[in-house]
Amino acid sequence: MEPIVLEEYEHPRLRRPIFVEGLPGVGGVGKIAVDHIIAETRPTKFARIYSKHFPSQVIIDTRGRIKMLTNDFYYLKRGNAPDIIFMSGDTQAITTDGQYEVSEFIVEFVSRLGVKEIYTLGGYNVGKFSEVARVFGAGTSDELIARAADLGVIFRSDEPGGGISGASGLILAFAEKKNIPALCLLGETSGFFIDPKGAEAVLRVLTKLIRIDVNLSELRERAKEVEMIAQRIHEFEESIPKPATPSKKDDLGYFG
Amino acid sequence: MEPIVLEEYEHPRLRRPIFVEGLPGVGGVGKIAVDHIIAETRPTKFARIYSKHFPSQVIIDTRGRIKMLTNDFYYLKRGNAPDIIFMSGDTQAITTDGQYEVSEFIVEFVSRLGVKEIYTLGGYNVGKFSEVARVFGAGTSDELIARAADLGVIFRSDEPGGGISGASGLILAFAEKKNIPALCLLGETSGFFIDPKGAEAVLRVLTKLIRIDVNLSELRERAKEVEMIAQRIHEFEESIPKPATPSKKDDLGYFG
Amino acid sequence: MEPIVLEEYEHPRLRRPIFVEGLPGVGGVGKIAVDHIIAETRPTKFARIYSKHFPSQVIIDTRGRIKMLTNDFYYLKRGNAPDIIFMSGDTQAITTDGQYEVSEFIVEFVSRLGVKEIYTLGGYNVGKFSEVARVFGAGTSDELIARAADLGVIFRSDEPGGGISGASGLILAFAEKKNIPALCLLGETSGFFIDPKGAEAVLRVLTKLIRIDVNLSELRERAKEVEMIAQRIHEFEESIPKPATPSKKDDLGYFG
Amino acid sequence: MEPIVLEEYEHPRLRRPIFVEGLPGVGGVGKIAVDHIIAETRPTKFARIYSKHFPSQVIIDTRGRIKMLTNDFYYLKRGNAPDIIFMSGDTQAITTDGQYEVSEFIVEFVSRLGVKEIYTLGGYNVGKFSEVARVFGAGTSDELIARAADLGVIFRSDEPGGGISGASGLILAFAEKKNIPALCLLGETSGFFIDPKGAEAVLRVLTKLIRIDVNLSELRERAKEVEMIAQRIHEFEESIPKPATPSKKDDLGYFG
Repeated sequence: MEPIVLEEYEHPRLRRPIFVEGLPGVGGVGKIAVDHIIAETRPTKFARIYSKHFPSQVIIDTRGRIKMLTNDFYYLKRGNAPDIIFMSGDTQAITTDGQYEVSEFIVEFVSRLGVKEIYTLGGYNVGKFSEVARVFGAGTSDELIARAADLGVIFRSDEPGGGISGASGLILAFAEKKNIPALCLLGETSGFFIDPKGAEAVLRVLTKLIRIDVNLSELRERAKEVEMIAQRIHEFEESIPKPATPSKKDDLGYFG
Repeated sequence: MEPIVLEEYEHPRLRRPIFVEGLPGVGGVGKIAVDHIIAETRPTKFARIYSKHFPSQVIIDTRGRIKMLTNDFYYLKRGNAPDIIFMSGDTQAITTDGQYEVSEFIVEFVSRLGVKEIYTLGGYNVGKFSEVARVFGAGTSDELIARAADLGVIFRSDEPGGGISGASGLILAFAEKKNIPALCLLGETSGFFIDPKGAEAVLRVLTKLIRIDVNLSELRERAKEVEMIAQRIHEFEESIPKPATPSKKDDLGYFG
Repeated sequence: MEPIVLEEYEHPRLRRPIFVEGLPGVGGVGKIAVDHIIAETRPTKFARIYSKHFPSQVIIDTRGRIKMLTNDFYYLKRGNAPDIIFMSGDTQAITTDGQYEVSEFIVEFVSRLGVKEIYTLGGYNVGKFSEVARVFGAGTSDELIARAADLGVIFRSDEPGGGISGASGLILAFAEKKNIPALCLLGETSGFFIDPKGAEAVLRVLTKLIRIDVNLSELRERAKEVEMIAQRIHEFEESIPKPATPSKKDDLGYFG
Repeated sequence: MEPIVLEEYEHPRLRRPIFVEGLPGVGGVGKIAVDHIIAETRPTKFARIYSKHFPSQVIIDTRGRIKMLTNDFYYLKRGNAPDIIFMSGDTQAITTDGQYEVSEFIVEFVSRLGVKEIYTLGGYNVGKFSEVARVFGAGTSDELIARAADLGVIFRSDEPGGGISGASGLILAFAEKKNIPALCLLGETSGFFIDPKGAEAVLRVLTKLIRIDVNLSELRERAKEVEMIAQRIHEFEESIPKPATPSKKDDLGYFG
């Protein structure tokens, strides 16, 4: 088999399309965000890829039918506004070289469809609950970075500390090689749960950047549920007596 | 060497053959089931594959002779009834991409032999002993799913939770691409032992689906032995005093 | 680079050569054995291989010069008796597919040199010290197995339990495909130390099988030193008080 | 994508160039050393490589722009003295075969640029703080080894014990195949911190070997800061009461 197999159901002609990617990753933020916008805007699925770089398993749907793990492509025609290609999926590649190959494959594919702008969505694990989920960004284009900064997106070289892992980062890298302006939006998440709150934060920014109207109320509901669970855990943890003496690790942690 | 090497001893002409696969996996269920049916029906071995995706070792037979790790193919001619191809073996591929490559290779090979229907056998680890081993299923064809459901096979999108891993899942996926109706049967197993009970449950269904008469009494004997061992372990564990206070994990386990 | 690179210093014409392999592995037995016979018989180094399947490091010799990790080939001319090719080396391949590829490469190479018989040497970890190191075997030829059995080599399908891992096993498998009679000799070892005792046991058998006179006294000296260290550890461990109650593991160990 | 992609901004004509490599590794020594010499001598960046053997992530610069992980090449013209090519970078290859492939690629590339001498820089983890950081070496040329030994570099077959891992070792191995004299310099480091002290020690030797004047004062300042942190940790650890009885490990450690 080819390392990455593309199945196309349709060859859409798109008008200056924008590409929006969201795959499983930190806090599920990217996938939740794209899946929500797909559910709300009902775009047309026109292609999918599978790969031997994906996990070697199949999933089962409600009718008992198996389904390969795939990354799926949808288009949304918008008349005068630029069309949109969404990509969601079951998984990312699970090896390092697979991540490079699949990300390059995706950028190649959407660039052939004439994509003029790329947005990748993900989560940024800050390891604790925040009142308001901030959105961090990184990009390949000063103009896109400036537009996002105006909307409150935070750009810092030290956050996320280790850079951006996986497809959301590498798709930007390959976009840059093709001179396609690209931006990554990372919703702050505690990393403790699949996190609709970070996804909502990301979508609040994205919808303005690509000028699309999406109802976020259902996402807000799910975010509130997670808040409540988080609150319960917090109270539970507070109820556990803590040792009084600082540990060695606390003392020397800043050396790490 | 080729990544996968096929050795054919014979090129059988088969009549609308059914393909039945069972390799080592969860609880050994798939392999025990196919090995049992092979022992009872004495089909003819006609091909085998080995692969650098298999573990890098050899096994030793009773005469002190080494044997490569292989997956082995057998055919059973049945006159008017569809012929059967069985595949058993020493191992599955041990890498993700190896699983994809070997599974596709197998489906390619049996489809060239004219296979019209595929059954893959495996285990479903429920993590505890059950009085009666249920059989869970997933398939590529509504008709096969309906026939199996009539025989009591359970089809649910959430069981097994993570989908079906390895050859039993991917062979279905590649079968679907070739429009070969395919069904996976998973025998419930505790996962604590190599489990003839799950294998017996799977064979009770399979033998009806492919209309073959196989004596399951020896398998039932082995299943009973395992039951007795299970019972002993259960009693042993019951005899160990438990702590009275629920742990933090017990409280919050459903968040996981 | 090619996955495996062969460097030949000389193209020897050999008379019905026997191939003897010993690489690092269980207890260091195979490598110690072949290195000893090389030190005693002073054969001519004529080729080496290196591979990206080997660990990514170099070693340093006594003059401060680096050396790639290699597998090295030596020939020993013996007049009327069959010539011998020895292979020793710094490492085995460290990936599964690397093991398959390198082992096949080695068998291809020595078969082009006309090899008529293959011996692979290794260790068999029994996990405890033995008064006398037994030698276990496995082979591709009933005649070789019979000759080795006459010399006291033990052939059992259940020892080593998991079969033979790595080059010593796979070289036999590829030898069988080329119809070259091949035998693996595994010296019993505790697995706690690099073990000259197991190597000596293997060489006592090998030297008879390939009819070569090798002084084993130095190996016996080193074996005695290891015995003494083992004895000290044994005494030390005996001096530690043991808990009186059998643990759960002791009780149920036979289910594993 | 190609496994390794070379991007060249310029094709410099260089005069008998020396190649100096320093990538992230033990104690960060090699990278700190080369980055310091680059900061001080301000050479011209003319090429870079990226690879699917590198980690699958991107990093973010101070303007919020992403950057692929790369290894970067710089040249420094020096009139009558040999020109120098420096290579620094974000990462080494993270797989074994990737290390072989990237190291060979680098040697191929610089040998096409006419490189006559190669120096690779790294750290040697001795696991404890030393008053003075020694420099250990290994090479492919007796003449280079002799010159370095005259400058106090220590050449021993047993240090570093396991040889030299990664690019600093393999670049030497591939240099030797091309008959390019090459030397590895390893600065002693405790392995507890990113260590400018080991880097300074390496540069004191390197600058003499390649006859270049580099101000090391800033590196010395950073080294002193690390010394102070080390001193604090040492005092902290001394303040923790130690158990009086030697442990089993202490007793038998020399058997390991």
